[in-house]
Amino acid sequence: MNIYTKSNAEYTLGKKKAPLVLKNGRVFNVFTNEIIRADVALADGMIVGIGEYEGEREENLDGRYVVPGFMDAHLHLESTLLNPTQLISQALIRGTTTYIVDPHEAANVSGLDGIRYIIEETRQCRANVYVMAPSCVPSVPFEKSGARIEAEDMEGMLSWPEILGLGEVMDVPAVLNLEDGMMKKLSLFRERGRVIDGHGGSLDERESALCRMAGIRTDHECTTYEDAMREARNGIHILIREGTAARNLTAIVRGILEHGTSTDSFSFCTDDKHIEDIIRDGHISHNIRKAISLGLDPREAYKMATIHTARCYHLDGLGAVAPGYQADLVVLDDFEKVAIHSVYYRGERVQGILPKPCRIPKPLLNTVHVDYPGIEVFRMPLETGRQPVIEVQPGEIVTKLSFEDVPVENGRFAPSDTHQKLLLFERHHGTGMVGKGILKGFSIRGGALASTVGHDSHNLIVIGDDDESMDRALRELIRVQGGYTVVKKGTEPMTLPLEIMGLMTAVPYQDVQKRLKKMIEEAHSLGVPSGIDPFITMSFLALPVIPEVRITSMGVYDTKQSCWYQVK
Amino acid sequence: MNIYTKSNAEYTLGKKKAPLVLKNGRVFNVFTNEIIRADVALADGMIVGIGEYEGEREENLDGRYVVPGFMDAHLHLESTLLNPTQLISQALIRGTTTYIVDPHEAANVSGLDGIRYIIEETRQCRANVYVMAPSCVPSVPFEKSGARIEAEDMEGMLSWPEILGLGEVMDVPAVLNLEDGMMKKLSLFRERGRVIDGHGGSLDERESALCRMAGIRTDHECTTYEDAMREARNGIHILIREGTAARNLTAIVRGILEHGTSTDSFSFCTDDKHIEDIIRDGHISHNIRKAISLGLDPREAYKMATIHTARCYHLDGLGAVAPGYQADLVVLDDFEKVAIHSVYYRGERVQGILPKPCRIPKPLLNTVHVDYPGIEVFRMPLETGRQPVIEVQPGEIVTKLSFEDVPVENGRFAPSDTHQKLLLFERHHGTGMVGKGILKGFSIRGGALASTVGHDSHNLIVIGDDDESMDRALRELIRVQGGYTVVKKGTEPMTLPLEIMGLMTAVPYQDVQKRLKKMIEEAHSLGVPSGIDPFITMSFLALPVIPEVRITSMGVYDTKQSCWYQVK
Repeated sequence: MNIYTKSNAEYTLGKKKAPLVLKNGRVFNVFTNEIIRADVALADGMIVGIGEYEGEREENLDGRYVVPGFMDAHLHLESTLLNPTQLISQALIRGTTTYIVDPHEAANVSGLDGIRYIIEETRQCRANVYVMAPSCVPSVPFEKSGARIEAEDMEGMLSWPEILGLGEVMDVPAVLNLEDGMMKKLSLFRERGRVIDGHGGSLDERESALCRMAGIRTDHECTTYEDAMREARNGIHILIREGTAARNLTAIVRGILEHGTSTDSFSFCTDDKHIEDIIRDGHISHNIRKAISLGLDPREAYKMATIHTARCYHLDGLGAVAPGYQADLVVLDDFEKVAIHSVYYRGERVQGILPKPCRIPKPLLNTVHVDYPGIEVFRMPLETGRQPVIEVQPGEIVTKLSFEDVPVENGRFAPSDTHQKLLLFERHHGTGMVGKGILKGFSIRGGALASTVGHDSHNLIVIGDDDESMDRALRELIRVQGGYTVVKKGTEPMTLPLEIMGLMTAVPYQDVQKRLKKMIEEAHSLGVPSGIDPFITMSFLALPVIPEVRITSMGVYDTKQSCWYQVK
Repeated sequence: MNIYTKSNAEYTLGKKKAPLVLKNGRVFNVFTNEIIRADVALADGMIVGIGEYEGEREENLDGRYVVPGFMDAHLHLESTLLNPTQLISQALIRGTTTYIVDPHEAANVSGLDGIRYIIEETRQCRANVYVMAPSCVPSVPFEKSGARIEAEDMEGMLSWPEILGLGEVMDVPAVLNLEDGMMKKLSLFRERGRVIDGHGGSLDERESALCRMAGIRTDHECTTYEDAMREARNGIHILIREGTAARNLTAIVRGILEHGTSTDSFSFCTDDKHIEDIIRDGHISHNIRKAISLGLDPREAYKMATIHTARCYHLDGLGAVAPGYQADLVVLDDFEKVAIHSVYYRGERVQGILPKPCRIPKPLLNTVHVDYPGIEVFRMPLETGRQPVIEVQPGEIVTKLSFEDVPVENGRFAPSDTHQKLLLFERHHGTGMVGKGILKGFSIRGGALASTVGHDSHNLIVIGDDDESMDRALRELIRVQGGYTVVKKGTEPMTLPLEIMGLMTAVPYQDVQKRLKKMIEEAHSLGVPSGIDPFITMSFLALPVIPEVRITSMGVYDTKQSCWYQVK
């Protein structure tokens, strides 16, 4: 947008009153680290002057602080179960005006159409939403996801205005082994100077160096200061994550403080944060507040939430309260407590109104295509009791692989308090592929759970001890075309439909929360231990990039040995 | 350049010996501010690893410091009187591996051909030479320069790989008044995200804000900390200048130290630095050394000479000693004293060998086209003794305008110890335009000086008290097609030919220095006071963007009133 116009120049030079002036602010300058008493003159959604100004309209800030709108450097909008605008409208009133999203889940189910939906849906938000092109669809080559995105498919995306760069490169072995497909994707973005997000976490010096040479510029997976510094030394920008499940801020910020490290190489992100946590704690505002509470200079914390991110992602014109910058502002009652008084996006005060959902393309509402052979598939005939078992750990997404004697009756697996049936149905292409496994840790007695949310391929997962309940659960999710369901033997299913790609719903979050609460209670009443969130834990049972063992459409997958076991 | 190749990966991962390893260094990491004991592995002119490495070839650094090659963020190569490679080969062995040059003088004489010559000539240097497209050719609209460069002419330049952005925008009034031609140039570069260099100096808050909105991102003209901060607050990057004439480092760095200001908004440049000063003091190494001697943390000083500049100019892959970065390195015996042991460019040790000059296009050797009416032009008939007088000040380039009684004899101006003749001949297009003025401060008795170096239009200037000597000086510079000359009445001219555009010579700098020394002595023996460098002072007498009064081809120009006076 060209802000250098005759009328704006007259505002800037004070020859004419600007359309809107925020009077008597304390403006935080991210370039000089100063807090300066000044008015902020706005026009055309941009800042046209900082200093003494008069406006056609004036709002008195009464000495309140003005900081740039916050930026979430990396998040997945799909992980809330809600259509994307619901998360944004809640995070927006908490100060986050810029979102760099990776529509990885949508892409795994619906490919480019899924990405386009996220873009269309968020376009109506009064926020800056940028998209990183998902790099690993599917997340590993053998996976049966709804779509594949190859380098060739990505060439067209480079011209989409929302696309900033290449999304989190999770397939690190493909980078380290210079695999062809990955090299093509990396070079496509690297050669055009686009940002490439990494997914390293705890790489050693040499691996991190090679990732940097491949073009990777960020990492949001570091959980310790030491991991972060190994990457930062290679010029990789660290996105400090504080979300619902993964919380790395305390460890990394403590290290920064202890070593007096400059914050220049650091930004904030949430990765995955549920709406109830956003409502309770805030969004990026929470990262800032927590960092300050640990002892970080508040100015450094605000810079990590604003200008550092803008620089990393080449978002010229965002991240500062300065002339020529977009008027995305947060007005604070208290600088250290991050007490938000009001939020401006493009010079207009944000009201927190949810935009009308966009028209959802039909194919995205019709994504559960299971070639279901019938209830017999749940029988699970076993030749011997000694079987590979997937064990979940309370509060963790890593699983444990063991080989155990499981109960067998009449030549069939007989679930017990300890061992349950776990089946995964390929649900995108109706291939009829079914993976069968034995699960430890869910303890369902007399019922079943099912879900179409199953990272990253989002096939249909059913857990239970009772074949009729499992059959019912599966049929229910085919009927509603995706969602969560819980079935107590002999009763009707309780269901949360996730009609959009089987991942999200346009139902308001309050209703979703209420329904989900009841369903979780029902799951616990069926036996799921209190330390396990039944649907979230279930959603990670299929993720083959996380150790130690997973269920896939080809059977039980040992992530360490990269091999499959068939239960038989 | 793609560094992410199978063979480089093997070097990085330590599976194969790298072609060259610098062993046992103390590597300064610009991202983390750490100094780390490590080897530096090099391949393909790039850094492929920092850590423990073995090489096919190894050089032992014996614990010496390794820092990134220095960057001069803004300089004019023409101002040394030497063809560009001479300056670079001297500065290179003093650690400067990257040059962001503005070929403003070459462009004013020879337009795009002049710029192309600078690019061709420097391409052979073992250094990174980037070019900012000169924005003000001529420097003010009325000037009679050798070429005009309009926005339309610049469109093609955008695809030249050496062109980074738009060169110093000296015509600040054109920016503040949103003049059409300037707006076109600015938008051409701004809309493509290219860097635009400013030339503000001491703008007020509002002017600086408007420059920022116009797209200007740097300023190298700030002489005080306060001026610098007014710009920095608007996100303008400050290039701290320390050259031959203008020296702003002490003032600005003292301010930084006093206020504890972050160095993030600051870089170093020389703007204009003569080769003898480079040889005596160093180049950017001198800026670093001086900043450290003032008390700046050496690490901050090195960052201002490297990564800050790389970031400002979007020079991804330069400015750090890290994997994936170009292997431009300075090895230091002493970190605080900037004692240079050796310099590497693209992984090869720099030897300081002068490259062979490129073939100079004929038109660039034939640029002095004066339509000379004969010796009568020097007579200067005057009607009255009261005349506008241009007064030079020792050690300054600003001049003073006064109206004084000057000696008149036989209806003609009669030079004295105080008042001299000053004539400027349009020399590019043979228009026959001659500007006449009266100069105070040169005190030449019995002789003349002449020059084709006259910022920024580089017309032919003659000063003297004796018409025959002035005629002889002028004819001499036509004969040699540009240069400096000094003529003592009745003797042969002493001349330094500057055959390349009348600005530069391919003669080795040692010979130039010897010759120039003698000529300056001769000028002083003719009466030029010792506080005045005759040729440098003369070269600024025509520069209409500096107060208070100048000689132009249209007469004596009052820069404050923007009007001309004719001497008559």
